[in-house]
Amino acid sequence: MKAPTIIALLYGPDQPGLVSRVSSWIFLRGSNIHHADQHKDLEANIFFQRVEWAPSGQIEEEAAAFKKFANEELGMEVKVALSTDRPKVALFVSKTEHCFHDAILRFRAGEMAGELGCIISNHEILRGDTESYGLPYYCVPTSKETKAAAETEQLRIIREHGCELVVMARYMQVLSDDFLKEVACPVINIHHSFLPAFAGGKPYHQAHSRGVKLIGATAHYATADLDEGPIIHQDVTRINHRNAIQDLIRKGRDLEKTVFAHAIRLHLDNRILIYNNKTVVFD
Amino acid sequence: MKAPTIIALLYGPDQPGLVSRVSSWIFLRGSNIHHADQHKDLEANIFFQRVEWAPSGQIEEEAAAFKKFANEELGMEVKVALSTDRPKVALFVSKTEHCFHDAILRFRAGEMAGELGCIISNHEILRGDTESYGLPYYCVPTSKETKAAAETEQLRIIREHGCELVVMARYMQVLSDDFLKEVACPVINIHHSFLPAFAGGKPYHQAHSRGVKLIGATAHYATADLDEGPIIHQDVTRINHRNAIQDLIRKGRDLEKTVFAHAIRLHLDNRILIYNNKTVVFD
Amino acid sequence: MKAPTIIALLYGPDQPGLVSRVSSWIFLRGSNIHHADQHKDLEANIFFQRVEWAPSGQIEEEAAAFKKFANEELGMEVKVALSTDRPKVALFVSKTEHCFHDAILRFRAGEMAGELGCIISNHEILRGDTESYGLPYYCVPTSKETKAAAETEQLRIIREHGCELVVMARYMQVLSDDFLKEVACPVINIHHSFLPAFAGGKPYHQAHSRGVKLIGATAHYATADLDEGPIIHQDVTRINHRNAIQDLIRKGRDLEKTVFAHAIRLHLDNRILIYNNKTVVFD
Amino acid sequence: MKAPTIIALLYGPDQPGLVSRVSSWIFLRGSNIHHADQHKDLEANIFFQRVEWAPSGQIEEEAAAFKKFANEELGMEVKVALSTDRPKVALFVSKTEHCFHDAILRFRAGEMAGELGCIISNHEILRGDTESYGLPYYCVPTSKETKAAAETEQLRIIREHGCELVVMARYMQVLSDDFLKEVACPVINIHHSFLPAFAGGKPYHQAHSRGVKLIGATAHYATADLDEGPIIHQDVTRINHRNAIQDLIRKGRDLEKTVFAHAIRLHLDNRILIYNNKTVVFD
Repeated sequence: MKAPTIIALLYGPDQPGLVSRVSSWIFLRGSNIHHADQHKDLEANIFFQRVEWAPSGQIEEEAAAFKKFANEELGMEVKVALSTDRPKVALFVSKTEHCFHDAILRFRAGEMAGELGCIISNHEILRGDTESYGLPYYCVPTSKETKAAAETEQLRIIREHGCELVVMARYMQVLSDDFLKEVACPVINIHHSFLPAFAGGKPYHQAHSRGVKLIGATAHYATADLDEGPIIHQDVTRINHRNAIQDLIRKGRDLEKTVFAHAIRLHLDNRILIYNNKTVVFD
Repeated sequence: MKAPTIIALLYGPDQPGLVSRVSSWIFLRGSNIHHADQHKDLEANIFFQRVEWAPSGQIEEEAAAFKKFANEELGMEVKVALSTDRPKVALFVSKTEHCFHDAILRFRAGEMAGELGCIISNHEILRGDTESYGLPYYCVPTSKETKAAAETEQLRIIREHGCELVVMARYMQVLSDDFLKEVACPVINIHHSFLPAFAGGKPYHQAHSRGVKLIGATAHYATADLDEGPIIHQDVTRINHRNAIQDLIRKGRDLEKTVFAHAIRLHLDNRILIYNNKTVVFD
Repeated sequence: MKAPTIIALLYGPDQPGLVSRVSSWIFLRGSNIHHADQHKDLEANIFFQRVEWAPSGQIEEEAAAFKKFANEELGMEVKVALSTDRPKVALFVSKTEHCFHDAILRFRAGEMAGELGCIISNHEILRGDTESYGLPYYCVPTSKETKAAAETEQLRIIREHGCELVVMARYMQVLSDDFLKEVACPVINIHHSFLPAFAGGKPYHQAHSRGVKLIGATAHYATADLDEGPIIHQDVTRINHRNAIQDLIRKGRDLEKTVFAHAIRLHLDNRILIYNNKTVVFD
Repeated sequence: MKAPTIIALLYGPDQPGLVSRVSSWIFLRGSNIHHADQHKDLEANIFFQRVEWAPSGQIEEEAAAFKKFANEELGMEVKVALSTDRPKVALFVSKTEHCFHDAILRFRAGEMAGELGCIISNHEILRGDTESYGLPYYCVPTSKETKAAAETEQLRIIREHGCELVVMARYMQVLSDDFLKEVACPVINIHHSFLPAFAGGKPYHQAHSRGVKLIGATAHYATADLDEGPIIHQDVTRINHRNAIQDLIRKGRDLEKTVFAHAIRLHLDNRILIYNNKTVVFD
């Protein structure tokens, strides 16, 4: 078994000596850095760092002390996590089930540094499968008229389960700006095109119509601007003139599953920092 | 040495028995089919075929007879070529030289079923390199005021060399609608993004700004609608937050070279049919 | 709904007019070819063809008539299938479950032109999951001493369910030469390396030790020579020095799933011909 | 213009505080770290680091001082380089010219942090092309009998030009163990397969014969064990049953060019550390 570690994600205005001050703080407590990766955006003059270390003292206390140091002495924004953390995740799904099964099986197989807390859907269709996985299922139907009330109910469920991440496994409703503000945790969406191409609805139909030779999938953080949030991960696969829209949909499923899962894993491993509507991914 | 073959590219309204009628025509002359590939667009009810065979008789005569058969008896559009054809190609270039060198070296290495007839540029800069390759170089400067005259001169050069294909190796001028009509041969362009994303100018800057995780290149036939022509080939490569725009440009060069060369090769091998602003690529 | 079609896979000594004779036989019955793809191995002088058509008459009768024609008049080996066929498949698994879940979910989602008939394992561990999928599970423990008896029992189960294909979803026992002869149907295996590199056991350990920069997976037909059978499909993914063996195993799982599933799909779609320990894949 | 930086590549036994001690040494001189990347091999207990910084003082003096510090105080092996270094490179080639042209054009385009010092071949064939690139060409014919003398002459040329890296652009002779010891600088070779598959001669023939679905290329440091040296970079491309050996060779050329060039670039950018016959690549 690997000993527990502390992971810190920092960012803020660049200044001389940041790498040295962070590593010296850790060293001088007798702790041992396992990984440290940093990035500077030279145009924006911002410093980003992911550092992971085995603490010498009591782990929660050392994590809190580091956070205070980073905030107060370095003036950096910082998220501190433990390698043993298993944050709860809420999975939203509609009827399309490939990302749903794939994500659940990966959580079960121990691929993810987190746990599924609940499944929320606007349909009843996946209740049986969810329950055979031993997970709680909530059906919250939504329509134009009931959207606000439905979102209030979704927020209640997310809070009841203490979820710290929402992942949209092909959930076919747009989350409102209010919901995104209220939920106060990151929301990861999977879009079935290589954004920014074919944003909006029916991207496989758009791709077929334009005659592209590659189709893609994009995992991004959801923002109020639909399909415009910070991109986490993308991948593509080759198609040809023989492929009907149904073939694009089938090929795309494999892309969506792996791109979605990879983005969730990166997030739960605390490898992503967001700024200027872009991501820094320490992988 | 492989014996010379005839290659026919057919398309037209689908009707029963087309595969049989084409193959029987060839068989009954005692000729031997090497490859035959067909495609049906079931929505548009169009039949496409590429068939290649070793003729039993005199090759030009058999090619002409087949063309007549396909036109008159099958009612199909058809292009007939010989595997020994070496059509002349005009290469347009500005100052960016990677696609220029790459394409010329591939023609020299015998990778292409054609020959470079002339290099046309709006700058003098690549004259020396062109001449050391033993190729004729024409500098036709162009500005808003002189564009019409410059295009007339370009057309004169293309005709003088008997070119049947124009390839734009990062030529930084938009060809006018009139030019495209007058030249009366296909024009292949390389665009440095995965179209339809980042159409227009400075696609690497657009990609950097949007924070995508993949950049691409697209080879397409030029049409009057800029960056909207039928796509022949596309490829992508992975980038990350560490890559500055200069890195994107460098990584993109390798994509542009291989995608451009692959599109030219497919065209010269008579593997491409165009319809509905899309391509059928028999590869 | 697409109308049912007949699919024929032919191969045999090349001779003039094969394309014509096949297509004319179909045309003269008033039937309509949807796809026809052929290949010649010029060194071995063998002709291969996959042809798919909508019959004009009673489908089973026309399929039988074509088989007789191909055998007797063309002297070709031929397999004839109907697009409506749903052959039964036996899935072998040990304890490693990712290919097991992935394959079952694809069959359930309708991605495969076949049906899972039974799951056979040498362990009890996946009985619960199998039964919640509604599939029959057979645990046939096997050891050096009981191998022959175990294989007899496996053959009995396969026959009882009328399976026409066996797929080994990371089944960790070598099937004997006798078993492969007796089962008299194709057996598809997934190997977790890009064969021929790292044949045999523990390929991820071998890959880690050698320091390769890509790992792969290979789906192949099982033969008496372990890991030496005809390769159906392969894919790779990039790794780096940071990846421990556990990371290779995790990354490899995604490769194994998609490569395995793609090979099963190609087989069930009747797209594969085998000769000289290689495959011709009409995709 | 970017200001000049110092790049240090360190490795040695792991010990607590290495990241801190290195970064503090730099910070306390008033210098500014641009990049720092480290890796620990937990099994072997070895620490690896690449650190790049803008010096506060005179650059050569600071580089020398750091080397002394890393050696004497940290007990690490270290290579120190300046971002302005342009080491000379000797390129070996036989008759196959694609990697030769590709590498030369990349050096000319400024993609490489080094300069070609000389071209050495066992044939006269590329003298003209080399000279039109403005580079010195040495033809050193070699046979079983003259191999020792030829290698002595090659070493003389390499030293005369002060080359610090040898790259073998499809040079078809095996360098002797003695040569590799005498040359006392790294030698990069490009092998046309995804090693360890198809080591030795004629890998495309081996790949064709085995019926693999992917072909590859591998750049590695040359060692006395042929094709067994530390792997720097690998890539693959997809092939199918239609591809004859000639097609594999053509497709492979594009792989070889990009894999070879990428390996040279990584080396000249001081991104590679070697240990246990493997590479750590800080990219």
